[in-house]
Amino acid sequence: MGAPNAELIPEAELAELYGQPAEGRYDYAATEGNPQLIDQIVAYQARLSRHIDPERVLVTTGGMQGLDIAFKLMVDPGDLVIVESPTYTNGIATALSYQGQILEAPVDDDGLVVEALPGLVEAAGKIPKVIYVIPNFQNPSGRTMSEARRLKLIELAEHWDAFIIDDDPYGALRFAGENVPGFDELSPENHRIVSVRTFSKVLAPGLRVGWIELDPALRTLAISAKQSMDTCTNAPLQQLVADYLAQGRLESHLETLRSVYAERKQAMVQALQRTFDDQVETTDPEGGFFLWLTLRGRYAKINTEELFPLALEFGVAYIPGPAFADSGAFTDALRLCFATSTPARIELGVQRLHDALEAMLKRGAAV
Amino acid sequence: MGAPNAELIPEAELAELYGQPAEGRYDYAATEGNPQLIDQIVAYQARLSRHIDPERVLVTTGGMQGLDIAFKLMVDPGDLVIVESPTYTNGIATALSYQGQILEAPVDDDGLVVEALPGLVEAAGKIPKVIYVIPNFQNPSGRTMSEARRLKLIELAEHWDAFIIDDDPYGALRFAGENVPGFDELSPENHRIVSVRTFSKVLAPGLRVGWIELDPALRTLAISAKQSMDTCTNAPLQQLVADYLAQGRLESHLETLRSVYAERKQAMVQALQRTFDDQVETTDPEGGFFLWLTLRGRYAKINTEELFPLALEFGVAYIPGPAFADSGAFTDALRLCFATSTPARIELGVQRLHDALEAMLKRGAAV
Repeated sequence: MGAPNAELIPEAELAELYGQPAEGRYDYAATEGNPQLIDQIVAYQARLSRHIDPERVLVTTGGMQGLDIAFKLMVDPGDLVIVESPTYTNGIATALSYQGQILEAPVDDDGLVVEALPGLVEAAGKIPKVIYVIPNFQNPSGRTMSEARRLKLIELAEHWDAFIIDDDPYGALRFAGENVPGFDELSPENHRIVSVRTFSKVLAPGLRVGWIELDPALRTLAISAKQSMDTCTNAPLQQLVADYLAQGRLESHLETLRSVYAERKQAMVQALQRTFDDQVETTDPEGGFFLWLTLRGRYAKINTEELFPLALEFGVAYIPGPAFADSGAFTDALRLCFATSTPARIELGVQRLHDALEAMLKRGAAV
Repeated sequence: MGAPNAELIPEAELAELYGQPAEGRYDYAATEGNPQLIDQIVAYQARLSRHIDPERVLVTTGGMQGLDIAFKLMVDPGDLVIVESPTYTNGIATALSYQGQILEAPVDDDGLVVEALPGLVEAAGKIPKVIYVIPNFQNPSGRTMSEARRLKLIELAEHWDAFIIDDDPYGALRFAGENVPGFDELSPENHRIVSVRTFSKVLAPGLRVGWIELDPALRTLAISAKQSMDTCTNAPLQQLVADYLAQGRLESHLETLRSVYAERKQAMVQALQRTFDDQVETTDPEGGFFLWLTLRGRYAKINTEELFPLALEFGVAYIPGPAFADSGAFTDALRLCFATSTPARIELGVQRLHDALEAMLKRGAAV
């Protein structure tokens, strides 16, 4: 799932905050969200990047519901949805649940290859309704989209009259390199951009508290949609997140996460290089949770879905590449999560992956 | 909204339970729900009515998400959805969000007039895909469907190959009269019946914890659907509800609620009779939260939507009848909630409603 692991969740602080009295803690919240939480989200965003109008914020039941609302509002059966390939499994699933038609577009080290889109759209024979992107430390590849491509994508969305769903769960978890301005900074209050955010990766996923920033007219529709999806996001944990943010605790927590994840990513990249040399190719993320590994050389013919049960036997888990594309591509690739294990466990895991790959080769030779 | 009011929520007990350590409290939960909670739901249902197979239970983000999942799985654009008229506003909204075609069917003192359905279906020119009912202490009418009609509806669903969405948030809140067996008791494990349940009305609405009971094959689809709706229901409050149930606290809490709501309903019915005599007609619910009031005699021409702002000026609130029908019917009716106010406040509210109606008549005479 890519959840922060338990020792990186400030459980004691959260329990202490929950222990304090809160008026109406268990009542329904407003469908658009607890107003204190909305204010705290605005203040948090202002510290991270830019001031946003609270009238553009809707609290959601995690980032996943943000995506669900966005796709529900925008996608009618047969509408073309451009996605990165590979991309987040549940992002595709949500678009498909509204009978969108998925168009997979390639990703390289500068993120979505925006230059390829006009040709792909022409071949598809219809213009897209939605372009779904994870611009920072993308799930699963760990790659970040360049500023030039973001600007170009905003132009293309304008040209096609399409929406950009800007899904950014990891943006605050940059631990190396230079910050790249977000879609919301490059084109503030652009009615074609829906920004999907969550506290899952920076605080705790079990809370199911996230938000979307969107055009006020679209927000009115989104509130109606959410009203008949889950009425409101759970009230006690909205209050808990609001209280946690109000005390200014998230920034120092983010500092901790960044330094821990930097160390873990480094440990994983080094272990992979030492163990595999050029028999695998990996991305080198500057933030987030994930790294993308492609099998090369002796391993190039191994199918990562077939490898999976064997890897489990060897005591290491990953997500096989085909999970991240509706087309079933990426049979030679897999996603590793560096965020949830200590450097020592990461080194052990890489060694186990190596042993599983070698066992797979032997098995292949024996057939 | 029809929420239990704050003094009837066991806040201190819940805070105490939350203060106790819980392994993995803030992690993602399984999409189908915390297994401890599922076990407690099975045990709770067994105490209330019958044993259910845990493989038929899916935890949802409140009863609303239960409805959303059910309609999402069952309704394609243009599919016919039979609903009670009047019915729960967000039930209609959810069906409409999947482009269902709504067919409103009448309700009398024995609930949905099932005998009328074949004629209505013939007139509609297509058979229904879903029949959406709130069998106990219906929102908004407070009426309960008779056993004979429930049995007949199960037969009709079989005949039409349709699903019954059995939405029962209030069933455990019977404070008078004889229990009527539920759809799930009359036809256990019928794959056409999806039972939607919630802790919102018996514990606290802000938790957003509910569940659906459904056929295991359908549940597999429902888990996939939920996966790309909100990944899982919030984990800490699932654990909290599981702990609360494990301690056997809900049954005594239900006893308290039933006796308080019985007293309040009585206070409201008596105040209405005393104040209005035969100038209004009301239902006399044996449980739940709501009572349905229809204007008669001198008041019969008053539109309850037009009355609403005046009522607010007089310090009394209600939901106007047309909110409960897609057709905009019931302009002479309104829903009152007896559950959330003390008897003294209820008497005051009825007096204010009377004063608002009289002021409306004077205003009409002056025009």
